[in-house]
Amino acid sequence: MILTDSLLDFFLETRKHSEDICQPLEIEDYVVQPVIDVSPPKWHLGHTTWFFEEFILKPHAKDYTLFDEDFSFVFNSYYETVGKRVVRSDRGNLSRPSVKKVYEYRKYVTDGIKRFLAINQNQEINAILEIGIHHEKQHQELLLTDIKYILGNNPLLPAYSKTFEDYPIESHQQDWIAIEEGIYEIGHNSNDFCFDNELGRHKVHLHSYEISNKLVTNKEFIEFIEAGGYHRFDIWHAEGWDWVSQNNVTSPFYWHNIDGEWYNYTAKGLQKVEEQAPLTHISYFEAFAYAQWKGFRLPTEFEWEAAQAFFPWGKRWEWTESAYLPYPNYQKADGALGEYNGKFMVNQKVLRGSSVATPSMHTRHTYRNFFHPQLRWQFTGLRLAK
Amino acid sequence: MILTDSLLDFFLETRKHSEDICQPLEIEDYVVQPVIDVSPPKWHLGHTTWFFEEFILKPHAKDYTLFDEDFSFVFNSYYETVGKRVVRSDRGNLSRPSVKKVYEYRKYVTDGIKRFLAINQNQEINAILEIGIHHEKQHQELLLTDIKYILGNNPLLPAYSKTFEDYPIESHQQDWIAIEEGIYEIGHNSNDFCFDNELGRHKVHLHSYEISNKLVTNKEFIEFIEAGGYHRFDIWHAEGWDWVSQNNVTSPFYWHNIDGEWYNYTAKGLQKVEEQAPLTHISYFEAFAYAQWKGFRLPTEFEWEAAQAFFPWGKRWEWTESAYLPYPNYQKADGALGEYNGKFMVNQKVLRGSSVATPSMHTRHTYRNFFHPQLRWQFTGLRLAK
Amino acid sequence: MILTDSLLDFFLETRKHSEDICQPLEIEDYVVQPVIDVSPPKWHLGHTTWFFEEFILKPHAKDYTLFDEDFSFVFNSYYETVGKRVVRSDRGNLSRPSVKKVYEYRKYVTDGIKRFLAINQNQEINAILEIGIHHEKQHQELLLTDIKYILGNNPLLPAYSKTFEDYPIESHQQDWIAIEEGIYEIGHNSNDFCFDNELGRHKVHLHSYEISNKLVTNKEFIEFIEAGGYHRFDIWHAEGWDWVSQNNVTSPFYWHNIDGEWYNYTAKGLQKVEEQAPLTHISYFEAFAYAQWKGFRLPTEFEWEAAQAFFPWGKRWEWTESAYLPYPNYQKADGALGEYNGKFMVNQKVLRGSSVATPSMHTRHTYRNFFHPQLRWQFTGLRLAK
Amino acid sequence: MILTDSLLDFFLETRKHSEDICQPLEIEDYVVQPVIDVSPPKWHLGHTTWFFEEFILKPHAKDYTLFDEDFSFVFNSYYETVGKRVVRSDRGNLSRPSVKKVYEYRKYVTDGIKRFLAINQNQEINAILEIGIHHEKQHQELLLTDIKYILGNNPLLPAYSKTFEDYPIESHQQDWIAIEEGIYEIGHNSNDFCFDNELGRHKVHLHSYEISNKLVTNKEFIEFIEAGGYHRFDIWHAEGWDWVSQNNVTSPFYWHNIDGEWYNYTAKGLQKVEEQAPLTHISYFEAFAYAQWKGFRLPTEFEWEAAQAFFPWGKRWEWTESAYLPYPNYQKADGALGEYNGKFMVNQKVLRGSSVATPSMHTRHTYRNFFHPQLRWQFTGLRLAK
Repeated sequence: MILTDSLLDFFLETRKHSEDICQPLEIEDYVVQPVIDVSPPKWHLGHTTWFFEEFILKPHAKDYTLFDEDFSFVFNSYYETVGKRVVRSDRGNLSRPSVKKVYEYRKYVTDGIKRFLAINQNQEINAILEIGIHHEKQHQELLLTDIKYILGNNPLLPAYSKTFEDYPIESHQQDWIAIEEGIYEIGHNSNDFCFDNELGRHKVHLHSYEISNKLVTNKEFIEFIEAGGYHRFDIWHAEGWDWVSQNNVTSPFYWHNIDGEWYNYTAKGLQKVEEQAPLTHISYFEAFAYAQWKGFRLPTEFEWEAAQAFFPWGKRWEWTESAYLPYPNYQKADGALGEYNGKFMVNQKVLRGSSVATPSMHTRHTYRNFFHPQLRWQFTGLRLAK
Repeated sequence: MILTDSLLDFFLETRKHSEDICQPLEIEDYVVQPVIDVSPPKWHLGHTTWFFEEFILKPHAKDYTLFDEDFSFVFNSYYETVGKRVVRSDRGNLSRPSVKKVYEYRKYVTDGIKRFLAINQNQEINAILEIGIHHEKQHQELLLTDIKYILGNNPLLPAYSKTFEDYPIESHQQDWIAIEEGIYEIGHNSNDFCFDNELGRHKVHLHSYEISNKLVTNKEFIEFIEAGGYHRFDIWHAEGWDWVSQNNVTSPFYWHNIDGEWYNYTAKGLQKVEEQAPLTHISYFEAFAYAQWKGFRLPTEFEWEAAQAFFPWGKRWEWTESAYLPYPNYQKADGALGEYNGKFMVNQKVLRGSSVATPSMHTRHTYRNFFHPQLRWQFTGLRLAK
Repeated sequence: MILTDSLLDFFLETRKHSEDICQPLEIEDYVVQPVIDVSPPKWHLGHTTWFFEEFILKPHAKDYTLFDEDFSFVFNSYYETVGKRVVRSDRGNLSRPSVKKVYEYRKYVTDGIKRFLAINQNQEINAILEIGIHHEKQHQELLLTDIKYILGNNPLLPAYSKTFEDYPIESHQQDWIAIEEGIYEIGHNSNDFCFDNELGRHKVHLHSYEISNKLVTNKEFIEFIEAGGYHRFDIWHAEGWDWVSQNNVTSPFYWHNIDGEWYNYTAKGLQKVEEQAPLTHISYFEAFAYAQWKGFRLPTEFEWEAAQAFFPWGKRWEWTESAYLPYPNYQKADGALGEYNGKFMVNQKVLRGSSVATPSMHTRHTYRNFFHPQLRWQFTGLRLAK
Repeated sequence: MILTDSLLDFFLETRKHSEDICQPLEIEDYVVQPVIDVSPPKWHLGHTTWFFEEFILKPHAKDYTLFDEDFSFVFNSYYETVGKRVVRSDRGNLSRPSVKKVYEYRKYVTDGIKRFLAINQNQEINAILEIGIHHEKQHQELLLTDIKYILGNNPLLPAYSKTFEDYPIESHQQDWIAIEEGIYEIGHNSNDFCFDNELGRHKVHLHSYEISNKLVTNKEFIEFIEAGGYHRFDIWHAEGWDWVSQNNVTSPFYWHNIDGEWYNYTAKGLQKVEEQAPLTHISYFEAFAYAQWKGFRLPTEFEWEAAQAFFPWGKRWEWTESAYLPYPNYQKADGALGEYNGKFMVNQKVLRGSSVATPSMHTRHTYRNFFHPQLRWQFTGLRLAK
């Protein structure tokens, strides 16, 4: 548990960072929701604020007045415990509250927390606050990837930033790291913050395996495309093949073939695909098919965790072969916070690592991210095992 | 054909009026598209501008430079002749071009037309310009009703304007106007502007009938609701009954029952239903069911036109029993302008009259409006016949 | 009103004819429902029987015992007045009652009617019986076209009959019949049976027009296909163009292009398209597009009725430009029989004439058939007007 | 590998058993497909036959003549390698080939195999034959559950058999079996037949756990219903809660509440729910919610396999918490047979054990069955762990 002073700094830094991410946006960019998985930026700004209001100020701060009674309805995401909420698919239909009002809401709640912390310090509050901060950091990653979706699917393809680097290169040589058979301890084991899905540290037996020290690159994936990988049913899951066929998928997300050359939309706008950069914006289905085609496989999340110290990571979330399931002795939290992770443990795949969009102090080698196997708008990537 | 000078005034007044309608909006309100039938206000502003650029400046103005080459893709509505376009359901996914840019586009094209007209005057250009003006006036009505939809379906129910009056009362007594059997001439018959679907003036034989001099009121419709009208299958079309059942329709659009009293969203925000005001925001299905329940029927568009001089109209578009079909000898225009009306002449019902949202100089007793029978977001109303 | 004796003969002949139509079927053919518009043959056999049981025997025959209490649920089609029923899309999911049981049901009810008529003779009963007979005749046409659908969409393409002739040739020369402007009387005007939608004989003013004495042939439609008719948006309704695009329609229903030659499925199995035969199995959208392409139009149902004595008809149901609407002073019947026609009078087009599948004594020059504009499994055809 | 003589007996016994299962059916019952997951019985009979023709007779039997060239198209299930096939959702639309023809096909291929085996004996052929036999046994289970679906969803609720017992009672007392922490070997380890998904025997570390010696009973599940289990979002997965809400699920499949008492459809027709019998026809979502409500959990497939010798099983397929994933070193077979298992290893849950519908010689303690988490028409059940 960190001390209250540094916790306040951590809180304020986090609040500021969300707004920094939005700094390049036009007001219009805050509003739209082009597909159901993408939320409007102003919704992220409001929802992360609502979390602090709902779980700290409302129940614990004496004489606190809600900023607006309707905001719980507007900015609740999925907490059934807390009451009714705007249906997810309707978030992009809401022009009000305005962006200006959402920033006022942020300031009101941030100030409220500051005042509250000045006179209230106890472990329970600090624990919720810490969850709220990490919750906002999670949304910062979504905020960035949702903004990329909004701009990258606009026919004008506007750039987001001249400095954000979404295609960093791994310059070392590919090699295989050999891990010996044995019992490995998996899961969180320090006093630092973690989510409930990382807890229940436990033993896993792993047979000997090898895992790549490098992510698959764009160049390697272009070979897959050119070898007809998107047209060979035998390397895909049945559901993956349906997904490819129904959506007519022929390349990673954001890629455009212009006169025979591959371009992709990046934070800087449309650019030629950087062949040496690690592949990204692929679904689990594509990751699996690529591995099949190469004669290798994806690692499990346990294999990844046991080997993670041997390779540089932090550029792409990496699809694993593991389904998102509870660890032995998994305990979900009481009340609304118990809805955070456990109820999503079906039909999703685990991703490990972290990406160029992950904010500072939000990476852990035990962190378990999870998405449905067809999703591609995150900075997903692929590391082979055998 | 009107003279060029007054045509220019007419043009400028129309251009200004579209922007006046949007004056109360926040920038965010310009962007969203809560359902497929509603377009974002900035799209209306851009599309009506694109019409003048595409059909006048681009083909006829020497040395004219397009404001932005991508705008044809963004702001074309349905003219297949003119090329590719943003799918209608995606209009609300576009944060760019920004509202500011759209207003620059409007100014650029309005100035372009002014300069062009100063040196080009001929009947062909004037005719297209006149269509463009009336096209923009049509969109002004949609602009208002789309804004009402956007605000009236926002959970915060923000008001649009303190002065716009969408529930005007007809204070005269209801009575029946008797029309004699005979041959009546139907369709446009002056030199003034009209759309192609009003042309082909022709004779129609009408049997004797009676038609109400007054629109059905909210009070009368509340009687229908209280008599269980929404739950009696025998007074609905089969498709109407499916629509009621699947959408769980129990009142006109924008109506809310709060603690047993009827409220509705108006331009001034949520207000008690004004019982004396003419009913509005009903589908054809509801209009038909009400008439059945009362033992009367809807007039045909021919009966309406033959009697229109005897009653005050201009408050509600009135559903008729007529399907939207071509008049005898209907001729559609050549080229892209031929896509204006004819291709919609199936599966739609004719509405006659005009509404509180219809701009000045855009009403005619031969005007044929048309919508699918389930739509309710226009200021639709109901006049009985027998 | 016809006399009871001949009415009994008429009844028995009609009952027998339904079973004759099914004589070539395997038991399996009676069961399936490949699309929602097609009903399983055993359902038609049961439903037409249920009509007599429900509206005559159950209310009027003393001491009558229902054949099976559950059959009302199974064989009611759409009469909301009469109670719950199997959802239309589920008809093909019912393996029971078996075909054998349905034939027993037919015999039981036919015998019941015979016994009942022997001692009950009055105008009211006769009128309902007559409706029931014509109701069964309507279903005989559907029975034939549904059987064609079931067999014609089976990958084995089994033949139905060696003698049924679905592609009869009209051997006379095409010519135009000129009709003078004037007032014409439209609607039923004898004591013979008709449906309620034909009543309300009334005057219609028609401007002068010309109408073809011959249906459009397959050969003529092949010219349309070869001229790219299915790829020219400008000759289609907007909804028609969506239908063509979404369903990838490139020819009439049942047509197959094999090595560059046109074949179609007929009652005799797959055969070369008979070029001289009248075109059939087209939607209203295709009929309209063809007429546009030729520079002509479809007749209205009034133009068709005013001219029908001048041309041979009875081979194809002919699409008209008219929407299916009530005639002036249309009165629907009381009770469940009132659900027969009126509630379908929206979003459908009128077809006139009769087809090779229409049973004897079921054709009238005032008969109004109706279908949604995209449907093609009936023996629909096309006659031009100008 | 078993000897050819007993293999032939095994083959003939299996072929006969499929037909025995269908003995109580009417011809009509063979044809229908009420939902996409259920196949028509005649399709199962044809498909299991096609497997022997396609993989043995066609490639290996000299001078073999296909029974019908079109049958590969009709009876291929999902083998993309082998060519085009009827879309799964269309199986119930096929009235032909007739049931009689399918039985002829069965006899033709069974005789063909007999003749072929008399002169061809080698390990490769025997291995494929053995797969074909086990493939047919798998379909026998589906055949029974599909028949139950067809009859149990018919409004007449016809019985299937007077002797088939689908609600056997486990009469022993419930108790917990304690398993110690340790390394356990998982996967197939004999020379007997198994599917490829059971291979790759490997070590798994298990923490100590307890597992029930008895399945959850109907009586226990009624307590869950009465405690409002279907209405408490906090015990469901988010996707489970959506499934319950959208489908309005309030009880296990085949259950009907009649005047406050629970009945269920069984092979003998509609009967009162046998409270002592093990619960069945529940989805994984329901199994999980029940366990949550009781404060326990589902076992993993590894925990199940490590404990299986301690409890009687064979009545219900038991949902586990494990996702269906490849074992370490999983190798899929070459060619079309490689499509058997591997391509389904995403978004499905593992079930262990076997059910009242599993044919003899088709149970193994390493057998891995798998279904999507919402499916209920199999004889699924539930065993708790902690």
